[in-house]
Amino acid sequence: MTTTTTHDAVEPADGEAMYRWAQDLYPLHRSLTGPGVRATLDYLRGLLPGLGVHEVPSGTPAFDWTVPDEWTLRDAYVEDVAGQRVIDVRRHNLHVVGYSAPVDRWVSREELDAHLHSLPEMPDAIPYVTSYYERRWGFCVAHRDRVALTANRYRVVIDADLAPGVMNVGELVVPGHSAEEVLLSTNICHPSLANNEVSGLVMLAALARWSAGRSQPRYTHRFLFLPETIGAIWYLSRHADLLRERVVAGYVVTCVGDDRAFSFVPSRAGDTLADRVARNVLRHRATNVTHYSFLDRGSDERQFCGPGIDLPVCSVMRSRYATYPEYHTSLDDLSVISPRGLQGAFDALTACLRALDADAVYRTTVRCEPQLGRRGLYATLSDGRSALAPRPLLDLLAYADGTRDLVALADTVGMDVLDAADHLRLLGEHGLVTQTS
Amino acid sequence: MTTTTTHDAVEPADGEAMYRWAQDLYPLHRSLTGPGVRATLDYLRGLLPGLGVHEVPSGTPAFDWTVPDEWTLRDAYVEDVAGQRVIDVRRHNLHVVGYSAPVDRWVSREELDAHLHSLPEMPDAIPYVTSYYERRWGFCVAHRDRVALTANRYRVVIDADLAPGVMNVGELVVPGHSAEEVLLSTNICHPSLANNEVSGLVMLAALARWSAGRSQPRYTHRFLFLPETIGAIWYLSRHADLLRERVVAGYVVTCVGDDRAFSFVPSRAGDTLADRVARNVLRHRATNVTHYSFLDRGSDERQFCGPGIDLPVCSVMRSRYATYPEYHTSLDDLSVISPRGLQGAFDALTACLRALDADAVYRTTVRCEPQLGRRGLYATLSDGRSALAPRPLLDLLAYADGTRDLVALADTVGMDVLDAADHLRLLGEHGLVTQTS
Amino acid sequence: MTTTTTHDAVEPADGEAMYRWAQDLYPLHRSLTGPGVRATLDYLRGLLPGLGVHEVPSGTPAFDWTVPDEWTLRDAYVEDVAGQRVIDVRRHNLHVVGYSAPVDRWVSREELDAHLHSLPEMPDAIPYVTSYYERRWGFCVAHRDRVALTANRYRVVIDADLAPGVMNVGELVVPGHSAEEVLLSTNICHPSLANNEVSGLVMLAALARWSAGRSQPRYTHRFLFLPETIGAIWYLSRHADLLRERVVAGYVVTCVGDDRAFSFVPSRAGDTLADRVARNVLRHRATNVTHYSFLDRGSDERQFCGPGIDLPVCSVMRSRYATYPEYHTSLDDLSVISPRGLQGAFDALTACLRALDADAVYRTTVRCEPQLGRRGLYATLSDGRSALAPRPLLDLLAYADGTRDLVALADTVGMDVLDAADHLRLLGEHGLVTQTS
Repeated sequence: MTTTTTHDAVEPADGEAMYRWAQDLYPLHRSLTGPGVRATLDYLRGLLPGLGVHEVPSGTPAFDWTVPDEWTLRDAYVEDVAGQRVIDVRRHNLHVVGYSAPVDRWVSREELDAHLHSLPEMPDAIPYVTSYYERRWGFCVAHRDRVALTANRYRVVIDADLAPGVMNVGELVVPGHSAEEVLLSTNICHPSLANNEVSGLVMLAALARWSAGRSQPRYTHRFLFLPETIGAIWYLSRHADLLRERVVAGYVVTCVGDDRAFSFVPSRAGDTLADRVARNVLRHRATNVTHYSFLDRGSDERQFCGPGIDLPVCSVMRSRYATYPEYHTSLDDLSVISPRGLQGAFDALTACLRALDADAVYRTTVRCEPQLGRRGLYATLSDGRSALAPRPLLDLLAYADGTRDLVALADTVGMDVLDAADHLRLLGEHGLVTQTS
Repeated sequence: MTTTTTHDAVEPADGEAMYRWAQDLYPLHRSLTGPGVRATLDYLRGLLPGLGVHEVPSGTPAFDWTVPDEWTLRDAYVEDVAGQRVIDVRRHNLHVVGYSAPVDRWVSREELDAHLHSLPEMPDAIPYVTSYYERRWGFCVAHRDRVALTANRYRVVIDADLAPGVMNVGELVVPGHSAEEVLLSTNICHPSLANNEVSGLVMLAALARWSAGRSQPRYTHRFLFLPETIGAIWYLSRHADLLRERVVAGYVVTCVGDDRAFSFVPSRAGDTLADRVARNVLRHRATNVTHYSFLDRGSDERQFCGPGIDLPVCSVMRSRYATYPEYHTSLDDLSVISPRGLQGAFDALTACLRALDADAVYRTTVRCEPQLGRRGLYATLSDGRSALAPRPLLDLLAYADGTRDLVALADTVGMDVLDAADHLRLLGEHGLVTQTS
Repeated sequence: MTTTTTHDAVEPADGEAMYRWAQDLYPLHRSLTGPGVRATLDYLRGLLPGLGVHEVPSGTPAFDWTVPDEWTLRDAYVEDVAGQRVIDVRRHNLHVVGYSAPVDRWVSREELDAHLHSLPEMPDAIPYVTSYYERRWGFCVAHRDRVALTANRYRVVIDADLAPGVMNVGELVVPGHSAEEVLLSTNICHPSLANNEVSGLVMLAALARWSAGRSQPRYTHRFLFLPETIGAIWYLSRHADLLRERVVAGYVVTCVGDDRAFSFVPSRAGDTLADRVARNVLRHRATNVTHYSFLDRGSDERQFCGPGIDLPVCSVMRSRYATYPEYHTSLDDLSVISPRGLQGAFDALTACLRALDADAVYRTTVRCEPQLGRRGLYATLSDGRSALAPRPLLDLLAYADGTRDLVALADTVGMDVLDAADHLRLLGEHGLVTQTS
């Protein structure tokens, strides 16, 4: 019996390369819109030559929403009477509240304080704060630094434009033999946050490069780089019906860089092909997996799975957003993610994509068990004291009755979905199973 | 966000008032038929002016049964040769076996003993015994008193009529906008038993008064005061088909007065609207809830849920019949029930009725999430580190897809059904959900 | 109330008689084919006069298989230069590898060793080894004896024919009133293995004798004595479509002789009538039951339940094959099985067969509960403090709504299926239930 196991045959995703890309992308000052987003997409275009970039004008309606003005930040700081910058966005992108309106004046300590954000319970962390849809200005600081601001007056400067412009969305389609497709998305709006942003960017780039190298690409893969929420809503407002027709499975790719855990958030329906494949892969190929509910959702699956959209999209993550201590603070830096963490998520996600490409409904071609022995698939000398061997082939044959797709068949017999695909390929070569769909 | 929570907005049911009614009703000598039942219904008519009283002649056939003769008890006692009453129904209604035939003669101690009932394991309790369908006479005594009966001869006197008359059934219909209705029933046949009878009487009266005060009464409420078993069977023999057409949910109301526990006995089908509403209410608004099976049934749900009747009727109780130590003995007296116990059951039952009146299937009107921020339903400053807020509104919007009724929607998102109704009302005011049925 | 409980009314299966038959059958040298199989069938014909024996020529195709040559073994031994038999099939049938090709020559110790099979971890056990479909020769020995073979040369003699002949299959049909049937099968190919062969032979004989004595035989019973795998496949290749039309339930009968446990392997579908009946019987009438998955299958249910065959066949066993320490070794001898072990399996299997013969869908004839008291089915004096009595009758009436077959009805009310049948018979005599199918 010469079954090729696939456990060690995963295509080499270079966790080290992904980590280097992350180092390049981490410092860029992304937001919903603006030059940081474009710099990010420019960098990604270097990795993905075919990457297209949409420009959506401010004011464009999208379902219940409107694309906001573009935010261009040039500088942001608080200085004291001595001209010393006590808070300076050049030291950390998170120091300024995202989408802050321009300001330049002297304020009392009390007024300044009303515009400061910090986390008393995490005195060293700068929080991540935005105000996209209400004009405000503000600064974020480590609580330890905030309490040291004891002068009476400070000058607050936010040198920014908040004016009609564009929102950018990146998109890359890797065609397969089928027009049916798998949707993969990540966000491009978080400034200098490693696990909850940059890991997704480099993962989607790595997956797209891997996808383009598939030797027998079945499904078309659509990769979307979206400003969270408004980007997804705008994209769906244009393409929801097409996606509903074509998308067989999808994964929101975020928080895929640390090495502490795996996490799964199912689709709203909960048992789509995407969910079932992901659960099988995580069961057989991952450790320390936490299964969440769709009620624990937090990224663009909120839009992809919403009523009237209902795409089969779920999330395979490492440590889930809102659960790890560094989340949405300056502590979510490059030390949180690692080549090994990225590699683990890449392996799980490519296993899902490979399982989807291998999906089929199988039917055994013979009645009763076939004689595996004369085909070299079974030991001809029966001295085993086990009930049945070789279990995997016989179990697959027993349940390949034309009612189960690949992952359902693998789940029924308790196998890894890609192992099942390999075994079924072998059985197919011997004429013992056929694909019925 | 200005959601009105309903947890503390329960209409004031006066547990104290219910308890006072119970004090009045407890001493009346109820049985399947007779003056004690009529006295009970007279008292209830004082609380419920519209209460109707049926008079069903003895001998009336009802499915497999026949309405029995009416029992009129004037006196019942055992006296010794000194003329001393050693057992006397004037001291406790339970001293005489229900439906005892008349007797007046001297008997030996042995013969007397064959007609006595006591509980050796509960020497202070007088048991509750009846013989409705076989003519017998008998007395019930505390075992402690029974063993003191050592004389050789006793006179046994039961001054009663057991003759053709009527069986009485009380009925009150509180109309709603809809002809569809909710059925509520209790029993009027147990003499001087507090939790397993009187609590149900005063609860049904309190619920009917509350029902009549509803500002937007949707469902019609039908309140039935029934002699157990035969009363329910007679009523169903006349109205089963009408009820099958109209009843959307129902609750048998018994054992609703003590403060030790909540109990739930589902309908035979197990997952009717009545069951699902009750389970949600008990999950979110009660503590110490025991969930039983329909196999643990014991009151008129035996008839309401029987084959060929199949009404969606279940039971929300405090301590269930046959489970608490005082059950069916003289110890089930007014000390077992309390204003607080009655109030707790009233709150749970009115929550069920309010949830039923609020029931609807909701559908979100927008595709993707709506922009809650510009409607004042969402903090415009995102500094939270939680995955998604405000969860309740977004969760309801995510699952309001036209496939779930109110309680299913509340269950899906893990909310109290009345809280869900309030949140959905708010979303409806903003045009974000509509009712589809 | 005069319900006849059936718990103690099991027809006397004579575990002692079965054990004596087992003593007779144990020494015969069975294999897939050959004189040992015929001697076995001859013996069984003594117990079952109507037993038919098929003769299937070698080379007959059967689905993916071909019936192999017949194996006739006359002698097999290894002798040393002194002419001493160091291994001798006359001492134990397991000493020769099943289907060994003829050989007679002197071999070196090394060559001999390559043809020996032993179990180092069980040094006293002779393993059971076969090579049906690849020509080999070999001997099986206790490991303790193997290590004592230290001479340089040995003569190996297997005096056998491996040549075209026949494969034998035994079959007995006990007709019932219905042409629908229950299938029961066991194997006739294991030499001198007690629990995993002989117990099945004597059990099938006992069941067939019991079946022929049924007073009201409803289902036809088909008993098959099959060489494992190839025998079942050949039989199905001829009769699968007929069986698919007629078989309502079936049981593979193997490993039914020891007294340590009960085991259940479900059918592939998992919830057929055969499965449901067996689970009810084991729940109420057996102790120490292990429930396995169809993935743990190991006997002819592999063929009966295979894709394209899909018969409702499961296995009720004592200690399951491949789980008990003596399995497939010389230690699986007559000391492993016992009259008590055989009797226990017989009781369980006849309970299944009786439950199948009693199967029907019941419907209560009255609406609401009937008045059991006037029929003598209910105590007319209600002094119980239990919620509902007599539970069994009322529970059956409550759920006999025309939607459940006998075992589903019994399962719903938590009763033994044969007790339920007795209670329903009583209710039927009183006109309170009818059979709707």
